[in-house]
Parts: sequence; structure tokens; C-alpha cells
Amino acid sequence: MTHSSLPTFQEIKDAEERIRPHTHRTPVIQCSDLNALAGARLFFKCENFQKTGSFKARGATNAVFIVPESDVSRGIVTHSSGNHGQAIAYAASRRGVPAIVAMPGNSSAAKRSAVLSYGGRVVDCEASAVSRANAAKSILERSGGKFVHPYDDPHIIAGQATCALELLDQVPRLDAVIAPVGGGGLISGTCLSASHLAPETEVFGAEPRNADDARKSLDAGIRIIGPPPDTIADGLRTPLGKLNWECISSSATAILTASEECIVEAMRLIWQRVKVIVEPSSAVVLAAMLEAPGKFSGKRVGVILSGGNVDLDCLPWMAGR
Amino acid sequence: MTHSSLPTFQEIKDAEERIRPHTHRTPVIQCSDLNALAGARLFFKCENFQKTGSFKARGATNAVFIVPESDVSRGIVTHSSGNHGQAIAYAASRRGVPAIVAMPGNSSAAKRSAVLSYGGRVVDCEASAVSRANAAKSILERSGGKFVHPYDDPHIIAGQATCALELLDQVPRLDAVIAPVGGGGLISGTCLSASHLAPETEVFGAEPRNADDARKSLDAGIRIIGPPPDTIADGLRTPLGKLNWECISSSATAILTASEECIVEAMRLIWQRVKVIVEPSSAVVLAAMLEAPGKFSGKRVGVILSGGNVDLDCLPWMAGR
Repeated sequence: MTHSSLPTFQEIKDAEERIRPHTHRTPVIQCSDLNALAGARLFFKCENFQKTGSFKARGATNAVFIVPESDVSRGIVTHSSGNHGQAIAYAASRRGVPAIVAMPGNSSAAKRSAVLSYGGRVVDCEASAVSRANAAKSILERSGGKFVHPYDDPHIIAGQATCALELLDQVPRLDAVIAPVGGGGLISGTCLSASHLAPETEVFGAEPRNADDARKSLDAGIRIIGPPPDTIADGLRTPLGKLNWECISSSATAILTASEECIVEAMRLIWQRVKVIVEPSSAVVLAAMLEAPGKFSGKRVGVILSGGNVDLDCLPWMAGR
Repeated sequence: MTHSSLPTFQEIKDAEERIRPHTHRTPVIQCSDLNALAGARLFFKCENFQKTGSFKARGATNAVFIVPESDVSRGIVTHSSGNHGQAIAYAASRRGVPAIVAMPGNSSAAKRSAVLSYGGRVVDCEASAVSRANAAKSILERSGGKFVHPYDDPHIIAGQATCALELLDQVPRLDAVIAPVGGGGLISGTCLSASHLAPETEVFGAEPRNADDARKSLDAGIRIIGPPPDTIADGLRTPLGKLNWECISSSATAILTASEECIVEAMRLIWQRVKVIVEPSSAVVLAAMLEAPGKFSGKRVGVILSGGNVDLDCLPWMAGR
């Protein structure tokens, strides 16, 4: 597998084997209230219960454990708005090697402290893609180590693909699977697993309308990178990756979008009705469905709740956040 | 079964059959972070995922569906600080009969509006046990109906017992089960199921130190009823019932207690680490364990997370709550 091509289905199955000792097979839960609200049968794949609190543990573990012994001793370097960073710190600690994470200053405090709690080092950078990449590059120049991109990497994509691999095994005959889109690691993996295991299942992405580079790209037929967007969904502020775009453009049915207000409302609904903690990036999926009434009417829909890492002191419905 | 005796094991199994179409078999989840913190292997029985958001749906459904057709048409009357009220409103709506709930003014807004959302009627009363009972009595005098006590009732206890019945089936060889104690419905049912299915499993209760009537009663060897207590655990402000005391005094190993600060801290921990929404009354159990370090060291402990109904606008760690 070269660094520039999408993983094969065998590589996804290998990833599943590789990460199994370090990750959870997360449960799928249902909620009759939300089924009634959405007019569809929703199957929530709870990656908020995943190790490190998000699906990112899958890709990071695969990418960290696939590095040959000879290359891994100087540690793993990455950049991340948060969840990938903690996932890399977690996976590196499981492998017993150091991790250094370049994090934008606007990352959530909970996510920063989680990187530290797994024994990772945090280096501050600006929020732009260029600044992140430069920060990681300068760490690599100073201290060496193996760079793992947060989403534009076949090992990461193979790891994230194990989420839909499980979901499609846990819930038969899904009409659709819908996942949030940031850089595109999760949606790419979802497309790959679905195309092999359930080609009749449609794959949808969901984005904040304020960060709709994937939807714009799909409309234009070419990958469009905008300026760093402003959205409460802090995990989805990253630009779409190249490999990820390749996958989305060939396999995703459509990208749906959601307003900031609807994202917050959907997050509250999931907390109140499903009784699970999800972060705004996860709520985007339900929000986008509720903003497209009738689209999934009567369908069986797998909904990937990507993560649950939030600052409990700074919830979006609190005054003065 | 007379109204004044504890349910038999057969009656508990009958309750399980009776409520099955209307309730969930809730999942059991684990969390390595909290295992490490508690120094024990914890199995969280997630009654926060139960219908109506708490275990109360079990007892209420059993009590409402066991009423003969000839007695049920004028509806069900009860008093409740919240979760039992919504559970009765839910069960009555499933049976197609009215429900009237006397609720203390200090009940949570979320719980009051939930009763209404299931089609129940709310009548205000004071928080004291006498005021609640009088309010229910005057409703019964005015409009008739069948009274269902929130915990001091064998049908309620049989329903709540189905929670431990499931847990002991889901997780073999538990050293202990621990459940919160308010009026004592859940702990009584837990004692009954454990004594039949796993007599070697110890049953512990957990109470706020500010509402420790069960612990005081167990110490004194006689049921002690104090004044209405002040605790954030709004589900545990009720005095211990008579049948419930009978069960606890003969079968519970001990009642542990927790400070208000530790309850809030434990609630946050469960939200942050387990990623599930629990109400303060549920967090009391983890809080009491953390305040008794070493007590469960290395043990396999079933922890009943009793409910997840909270006001998201009024969380205990928010300023100015």
C-alpha cells in the first residue's frame, strides 16, 4: 500500500484485526422518540463510547501500529483540532512511543487536556491548514519522528472504515449510512466499507453549512478548499483531504448541510432523548437529517455519532459561552 | 399477592413478562477509566436508557397493567418527585387510561414537562410526604381512580426487581450490586432478585448523606423517617417505605452515603468518561463508592445507573444554578 492510494478491502480487514486489542466494538442504539421525529428508523453507532471518546482511535491506532519497529522509536507527530490528537497520543502510549501534537489555539480545552493525559505533548499553532502543516513540519525537522496525517492517509482511512464495517455487520439491510464530514477520513472509510459490504446502501455526508467544502466540491466536481470556517462543530473545521475527496466524489450519494442553530438543537435532542453525550460534530448528522424532512422517510438509516468530547463547562446552550 | 407483602420470585418473573412489550432490556456498559479510578470492575446497568429515562418505567408498567380492566377506567393516581410520575403517565398512556400525578413544587422542570408530554395531568403539592399523600387522597376523592404508590407497593417492587434480574443474567459472578435508595423501590427489588438468583452477591444501597434515612434506619434497626431532606439528588428525597424497609433490613449488606460535592463530581465523571447522561440520583452510587476507597477493591460490581432525566439548562456545575 503506497501513501497515495486508497486502502483495499483486505487492508480494511487487516486494520480491524490490528486495532481490535486497543479499541471497542461500539454498540448501536435506537431511540423511539427520535425515530418519530425523523420519520425514519435510526441506528446510532456510538463512537462517542469509543476509546478516547471518538472514532479517531480507530484510524490512529491503525496508523501507529502499522509503522515498522525501526521507524517508530522517535515517536509520532501529527496536527489536530483535538480528537485525532488524543487518539494519536492514546495509540502511541499503547505502543510505548512518544507523541507530539500541533493543536490550533481554538481547540477545546477538554481535547487539549486529554492529549496531555495520554502522555502526549502539545505544540500550539494557528487554525489554518497551512499553519498546522508548518507546525508539524518544524517539529519533524527538530526532533524527527513519523508523521501521521489526521485524515489524508490510507492507514487512517482504513482504520476509520472499520466503524462502518462493524455497523453493517450489526444492523442488516440499511438503506443509508450518514456520517459527519470534516477532513473526510470517516466518510471515506464509510464509503469504502459500504461499497464492499452493502453496495445498495447509500452513503451520505453531513457538514455544517458554515463549513460546507465537501458539498461545494461535490457540486463543482472538483475539490474546493475555503478559508478556515467558523462553526461550533470544532471537529469539522478542517479542509477536505485529497484521498478523501477521491473517495467521496466517486462513492458518496450526497452531502447534506445543517445550520449552526440546528446543530445545537440536534445536540440537545440527542442528550435529552438518547441520553448520550455527543459533541457538536456528531450532532451535525441528525441536524442535517432534520433539515431535510422526508428525505429518509420510512428508511433504515445508520447514523454515526462520531464523538463525545465536550467541555462540560462550556455547553452551546449555556449563556455567555 | 396482597398489598402488604413482598412479591414472590414468581411474581417478579411474571412482572418481567408483563412489562416486556413496553420497556427496554437496557445495556450494561463498562469504562476502563472509571474502573481504574474505583479500583474495581464496574458494570453500569443503564436504566437512563430505559423508557421514560429511568428504571421507574418497570414498576409503573407492572403496576398499571396488573390493575383489572374493571378498576382501571377512571385512571391511575400517584404522587412523585418526577420519574415515577412520568413512568405512570407513560404506562397509563400505553394502557389508554388517564394519569394524575401530585408533584412537589421543587421537582425538576424537565420531569414535570415529561409527565405532561405523556398525556398525564400534574397537580401541585408540597414536598413533604404528608402533603404528597394528602394531595393524592384528595384527587382520589374527587375523581376516583386507582392509586399506585411510588415505591411502597409490591407490584412496583416486582417491576423494579426486573432490573437486577436482567443485570444478573447479563453479567455473571458479580461480587456486589449497588443501587441508589430513595423510597427504596429499586433497592428492594434488587435485594429480592439477588437473593433468588445470586445469593452470594452482596447488595449495597447508596444515599446522599443529606438524605440518609435508610442508613440511619439500618444502624438503629428500626425505620426512621426524618424531615424532607435537602439534596441535589431530587429522586432520593422521599422517605423510606414500609415494605421497602422490610426488604432492606433483612437483605441489604449496607447503605453507603455520599456528600453533595462528591455527587456532583461523580455525575461529571460519568458524563465525561462514560459519555452517558445521568441525573444526580444515579451519580450517588459512584460517589458513595469513591467515598469508600478500598471497599470494592478488585471486585466485580454491578452499578445501577437509575435515570437520566436532567434539566440541561440547570446543571449542578453551572454558575448560578
